[in-house]
Order: sequence, then C-alpha cells, then structure tokens
Amino acid sequence: MRNPQLNANGELTHLLSTEGLPREVINHILDTASSFLKVSHRDVKKVPLLRGKSVFNVFFENSTRTRTTFEIAAKRLSADVINLDVTRSSTAKGETLLDTVDNLVAMHADMFVVRHAASGAPHLIADHLRRLGRKDVHVVNAGDGRHAHPTQGLLDMYTIRHYKQDFNNLVVAIVGDILHSRVARSDIHALTTLGAAEVRAVGPQTLLPTAMDKMGLRVCHDLRTGLRDCDVVIMLRLQNERMNGALLPSGREYFHCYGLTPAMLALAKPDAIVMHPGPMNRGVEIDSDVADGPQAVILPQVTFGIAVRMAVMGILAGN
Amino acid sequence: MRNPQLNANGELTHLLSTEGLPREVINHILDTASSFLKVSHRDVKKVPLLRGKSVFNVFFENSTRTRTTFEIAAKRLSADVINLDVTRSSTAKGETLLDTVDNLVAMHADMFVVRHAASGAPHLIADHLRRLGRKDVHVVNAGDGRHAHPTQGLLDMYTIRHYKQDFNNLVVAIVGDILHSRVARSDIHALTTLGAAEVRAVGPQTLLPTAMDKMGLRVCHDLRTGLRDCDVVIMLRLQNERMNGALLPSGREYFHCYGLTPAMLALAKPDAIVMHPGPMNRGVEIDSDVADGPQAVILPQVTFGIAVRMAVMGILAGN
Amino acid sequence: MRNPQLNANGELTHLLSTEGLPREVINHILDTASSFLKVSHRDVKKVPLLRGKSVFNVFFENSTRTRTTFEIAAKRLSADVINLDVTRSSTAKGETLLDTVDNLVAMHADMFVVRHAASGAPHLIADHLRRLGRKDVHVVNAGDGRHAHPTQGLLDMYTIRHYKQDFNNLVVAIVGDILHSRVARSDIHALTTLGAAEVRAVGPQTLLPTAMDKMGLRVCHDLRTGLRDCDVVIMLRLQNERMNGALLPSGREYFHCYGLTPAMLALAKPDAIVMHPGPMNRGVEIDSDVADGPQAVILPQVTFGIAVRMAVMGILAGN
Repeated sequence: MRNPQLNANGELTHLLSTEGLPREVINHILDTASSFLKVSHRDVKKVPLLRGKSVFNVFFENSTRTRTTFEIAAKRLSADVINLDVTRSSTAKGETLLDTVDNLVAMHADMFVVRHAASGAPHLIADHLRRLGRKDVHVVNAGDGRHAHPTQGLLDMYTIRHYKQDFNNLVVAIVGDILHSRVARSDIHALTTLGAAEVRAVGPQTLLPTAMDKMGLRVCHDLRTGLRDCDVVIMLRLQNERMNGALLPSGREYFHCYGLTPAMLALAKPDAIVMHPGPMNRGVEIDSDVADGPQAVILPQVTFGIAVRMAVMGILAGN
Repeated sequence: MRNPQLNANGELTHLLSTEGLPREVINHILDTASSFLKVSHRDVKKVPLLRGKSVFNVFFENSTRTRTTFEIAAKRLSADVINLDVTRSSTAKGETLLDTVDNLVAMHADMFVVRHAASGAPHLIADHLRRLGRKDVHVVNAGDGRHAHPTQGLLDMYTIRHYKQDFNNLVVAIVGDILHSRVARSDIHALTTLGAAEVRAVGPQTLLPTAMDKMGLRVCHDLRTGLRDCDVVIMLRLQNERMNGALLPSGREYFHCYGLTPAMLALAKPDAIVMHPGPMNRGVEIDSDVADGPQAVILPQVTFGIAVRMAVMGILAGN
Repeated sequence: MRNPQLNANGELTHLLSTEGLPREVINHILDTASSFLKVSHRDVKKVPLLRGKSVFNVFFENSTRTRTTFEIAAKRLSADVINLDVTRSSTAKGETLLDTVDNLVAMHADMFVVRHAASGAPHLIADHLRRLGRKDVHVVNAGDGRHAHPTQGLLDMYTIRHYKQDFNNLVVAIVGDILHSRVARSDIHALTTLGAAEVRAVGPQTLLPTAMDKMGLRVCHDLRTGLRDCDVVIMLRLQNERMNGALLPSGREYFHCYGLTPAMLALAKPDAIVMHPGPMNRGVEIDSDVADGPQAVILPQVTFGIAVRMAVMGILAGN
C-alpha cells in the first residue's frame, strides 16, 4: 500500500503522522518553516499564499491552545479560517464523521485540521478523500488519540535542529508518560528518520509501552541514568488523570522520582536543551527553576510551531 | 400592508420567508447564485462585494452547520463576520431582543443573519429596523421556529432548477415530518410560486399539518402513492425528539413505513432526484444505498447552498 | 514608580485604568476616536492600520458584548483577531496566567485585550511584559474585577464631550451600585482628570463605597437631591445578584427609590443627557420612557465605543 501522506510524485498531500515520512520531506518542511519564521518578525506578518482558501479547524476534542496555533498560522497565510466546535454540532445530532466531512467538502473546504480522541480519525478522512478522488483537499492531523501529533513532532525537530544543527551524534531523552503520549510517538518516529544516535524512553514501568524495545529505544526507569550526558531533554506533560489514578501514586511522588530539577539537569551535557510541549505542570514534571532557566527552549518551541504549521499548510496547498 | 421583504422599488431588502417572494425575485437570486457558483471553483474563492461590511451571525439557537454556511458565504464576499453565540450573552442577562439589535446597529452592523427558536423573530427585527428608518441594515432569516428557513428553500429550488430546468410539469414529493418543518414550509411556498405542477405532502397523519389542503398540496399517507412517478423527492430529517415521543412509535417503525429505500425510490420516475436538507439520519428516514446512490443530490445541495447564500447577501447589500 | 501605562516618552503603551492617565493622553484618545468615527460611516469601514497584527481577545470572564466591540474595532483596523475563551482552555489544565501570556507572546501576539474577574490581572500582564522587555506588545484592560473598565470610561468621556463640549462647569450624577462598579470607578477618575465641576455618587448606603468622600465625590442617598440641576446622569446596571441579595430588598424596591423615571429626570437640567453602559434592566434601574426618550444617549455611547476602542488600539500599535 502506498504511503497515504504522499501523492504519486512523492510530495506531501496530507500530514497524518511522522511515521513513514521520508527524511527529505521532513527537511523540506523544516527548511520552509525557517523562511516563514522571518515572516513572523516582519511588521506585516502575512503572506498571500492561501488567499481565498478555506481552512476548517475541525476539533472533535477541545484544545484551545492547538486550535489557536493553527488559526494563527492559517491567517498569516491569508486563508479564511472557520472554527468548528464539533462537540456542539451535527455529529451530536447523530451524523457520521464522513457525512460531516462530505458536507464540508461540498462547501469547498481546501484543508481540514483535525483533532480527534480516536486514533486514526484523520487517516480515515484522508482515505475517504482519496476514494472520492479529491486530491485538492488536504488533511492535517492536529492530534488523534494516543497515535500521533505530527506538527508537534516536527516543531520539536525544528527546535532540535535550530539548537544542535546535526542529529547524527545526538542523545535525546524523552521523559514521562510515553505510553499515552502522541507527542512522544511523533518525536520518536521523526528522530529515528533523522538519524538521532540514541533515543531514551525515561519513566516508570507503568507509563512506558511494553513493545518499546522494538522502536529502537533505550529504556531507563531511572531518571539519572536517562539524563546522563544527553543533548536534548524532552519532558512530557503528566495528564491530571494519571496523577490520582492507578498508574501513579501521586503528583508529588512523581516529581520526586521524575521531576526535572536543576540538580537532575546537571547530569545532562552542559549545553543540553530542555523541551516541553506545554502546557506545563510546574512542580509536577518540571521545576520552575528549569522551566524558566537558560537551558529551557520551551517558548522558542511555540514560536517555531507557528512557522512549522505555516510550512505544512503552505506545502500542502502548493502540492 | 407592504411586503416587509421588499423596498419601495420592489427589491429585496430582507430575506424572511419564501412566502410572498415574487417569482422574479426568486429567479434573480437563483441567477446570481449561478454566477457565484463559479467563484467557488476559482483558485481564489473571493469577491470584494462586501468588503468592509460587518455581517453578524446572531444565533439564538445553536446550529453549527447553518452558521458555518453563512460564515463561509460572507467571508467569500470579503465581509467581516462576527459570530454571536447569543445563548451565552446579554439576553441571558435579561436584555430584550430589540435592545440587542439596537446595540448591534449602533456598532454599525450591515447585516444580521438570525436564527431563533421563536417563529417571527426575524420579522420582528426587520419591522424594528423599518421603524428606525434603517434601510441600510438587512436581515436574513436563518431559520425561525417552525415558520421558515428561506435560504434552504431557495437552495432547494436552485437544485431542482439545476437538474430539472423547468418547474412547469414537475411532481415533487416532500416526505416526513412536515408539521414541524420550516424547510418544508419554505419549499412549498417557493414551489407554488415557481409553478410546480404538483406538490405532495407524504407522511403519517400525526406529522402532517391539518390545514395542509389549503396550501394546494396533495396529501398522501402512503409512501408508495406519494412517490409514484414523481420527479423530485425531498426527504425531511426526523428530529430525534419525535422518535421517542407521542407522535411516532419508534425510529425503526418510521423507517419501515416512510424510510426511502431503493425499492421505494424505484416507484418514482427513473430520473427522479433525491434531496435532503441534512444532517441525515441514515437508517431512519433514508437508506444508505439511496443516500450514497446515483439519484441523490444531497451534497450538490450543500454546494449550491453556499452560492445561494452569497447571492442573497450580495443582493441585499447592493439594494 | 513610573506610570505603568506610559512609555519613557510619556506615550500610551498599555491601557489599564483611567486612573493616572494624563489629561493630554485622554484628549489624544478622544480626538483620534473622533477621526475613526468617520471611518464607521464610510462604505468600506476599514483602515489598514493594524494589518498583519495579531490581536488576542483573552477573556477569562465571559462577556459576548464587550468582546464583540473589541473584535469589531480590531477588524476595522484590519488586524487578525483571535478569540480565546480561556474558561475552556489551558488555564483549566492548571497553567498559570503568565505561562498562558508567555505562550501567546511566543506566537507573536501584538496586543492582548484582557477581561478577568480578578482586579489587577491586566496590570500583572503588563508588568510581566515590561520585565521581559517586550515594549512591542500591548495590553488593553477590558474590565478587571471591581477595579477598572477604562475603555468604557473613555467612551463615556467621549459621549459627554460630544454633547456638552466642556467639562469645566459640568455636574455629573452617577446613580446605582457604585461599590461594585468598575465602570463608575473609571468614570470618576476620568471626570476628575478632565476637570468636571462636581461628581455625585447617588445610591443606597449599602452600594456606595465607604471611602467615597476621599475621591472628591458628593454623596447623595436621595435620588432627587442627586439629580437636581445636573448636566449628565450615568445610570449603572444593577447586577441580578444584588437584587435578591443581602444588600437590597428587591428589584422592585430599588426601582421605587433609584429607578430613573421621567418625573425624576425632570429634576435635572432640561438638556441633561442620560447614559448607561448596558445591558439595561428596564424597569429596574431605568424606565423605558427614559431609555427610549429624547435625552437618552445610550446607543450613541455604543457607536462611540467602537471608535474609542479603535483609537486606543491604533495609538498603542503606533507607539
């Protein structure tokens, strides 16, 4: 089966996952993002690339933060943006996901930015569009279940490339609830494709996937071992529902074992960078002294994220 | 009393209902929609007709689907669109409907797209604007109670004209809950004005209005009789609240008697078209084989709906 | 400590309160609003002053009306407007206010319009931006707790200047729940700065601040005394929660003592104007005959409010 994200010429036609995304496609996105980053610093932060195009933010799961980043990116490309809070709309009236999509396509949607609690929903839509022969309509996965969050994965790669230039000799530690994290999954696939030397999965047994070894990861249950001499630390957000659940004793306990404090960070290389997809739980997975410290690149991630989303949408509209 | 929808020159100044809308006004809207349909297929899907105008979507009743179609139409005309979710705003603080309107007029609103659970609310606003002497502010009824949904009626006429050209010899069957349907009412008035040969109201006794005969309709309680040799089938959505209510035994029972299956559709003319205002209840009022079959024009209806709404707003702003 | 609203050149860099706002800055805003008022009457109601700028409406407290006025003002300045309903977003996930702000700044926000139930929240954000050295990002207070609502205060000054030209010999009566009113507070500071001859605080003991005298106000518990020979009457909205609370017997009782009827208004000067920040409680604080009468300038206030908000945003973006 052909890669559902690429057209017959091997160009990006949907962004569904970093898994299976060729290295040259990733690099093309990051290079394009780099040029868009300059737009964000201009006095008039707009380019006419998507003028007259209709971008639909179709969020089946509420996420003001992520929706906002896509809305800003699309508006800076001069697109018309329509936000659909699908939790309040026709699907609530019993309409199927694909009927909703068919309707929006009939309204001449050019792009869907889709967030869904079910893994695979954006794939389903992309597959449906392929069957309809609608090569002019594109899907961007804005997070689906535990599966993927590819724009977050790509902005993380942008951030690493920005600070470390080369992936070849990099040791990257991903710390936290990797089992439930679509961010971790998207990072791991991209890091593997870009040739990172070593990727470590750091966290308690209960929050690491069991098939982890197959992904080429080094598993560390001890934070000290996980951080030692690494170049990049990616902290994951601990979902509130984990903290009081069966998988963890408490947030306080978690911080004691896996919270990133200055003392812990000192184990990494002196020029290691600290990343976090946000929103942060200060005092749970990360200490404020680290979050606000010189090694944190958490806010640059946000800035790069707008540029990466502009790049993805711009490339899709051009292909 | 003068027609509240027309100005002194007989031009459209509000769109409140298809009732009383002259044939030449309907045809002008459909002709204009036809030209806007081409805009939707252009690379830049925008015209500057409403540039600098402020269109307010004032929805006292939640409807993401309908609001979206008006939002897209207005943005493609280059208007500034402001969505007001009035269920959460000042009216909740005890302000009257007309005080809300006065305030928006004072903000220099150019057009109100109004959805309201109470029949007649858009008329009330139009009447208020007339008393204020504000001929430059226009009202579009986006559905009021059981009364009217004129843009749906007009897009249905556009669809029928597109596929059947002429209304003169047409037999149209409207099937379902006609009693509670503003769509049916708007369709019936428009079909009558445009000179359809026969309009049939098909449904159980409990879902047909008692004064039906006066509207010049042929009433059929049997679906077979209703569909036989007709040119156009308009299926209505069965509201969930009807299914478990006093008026109908169940959704399953309804489908058995009034659901449109391929076998039933075979009773209509071979080139009959099937319409539905959406969102569909597959397996309740319509079988998936019909909904996705070659005679269904349900998605073209959606496409035509954007063009018709652009036409209505463009004509209003020009008059 | 320097005035947090002004930059080193004494120009407006945030609008947080009318308190401490120099007379020349207020006059500059009102003069600029006057020129923007003309824009609202043009066929294309837009100027390109904020083209490519990103204005974030960050509303921690729901207010459709106020958000709409800022949204319209920003769109007429050609800004990209992003509405954040923060009650549903990351802060609900435990993120701090300043982390939210940092994230939006990292997305290249140019302006924050902030509404918050806590007094001082916009100051906190402005102070944070100052510490970050971000002189290019501006804050507009759209209402914080009981503290301030400066754009309402300024539009009230615009209205008074429009109808009365000069503040020097003016007697202004503010009637109602002054204790809990950020509008009253903003009006009083602005009136004092602009040199109003006398400002009266009129209301029951329980709804007037105890330190009132220090603000240079004349306190009147009797409405007749309060209105006698005044030039301007500013009626305040009586919040529903006051009406059934411990502070007042009932809405009916309140109307009897402090409701503005034609008979009461006759005590003021014959050319006195009546203002209200909206939404009105007809029959509670104001009689419909007054609200709709010739002395009411309540709807012009709304019109002026758009122009004043355009002026504030335009001036901030220019400094």
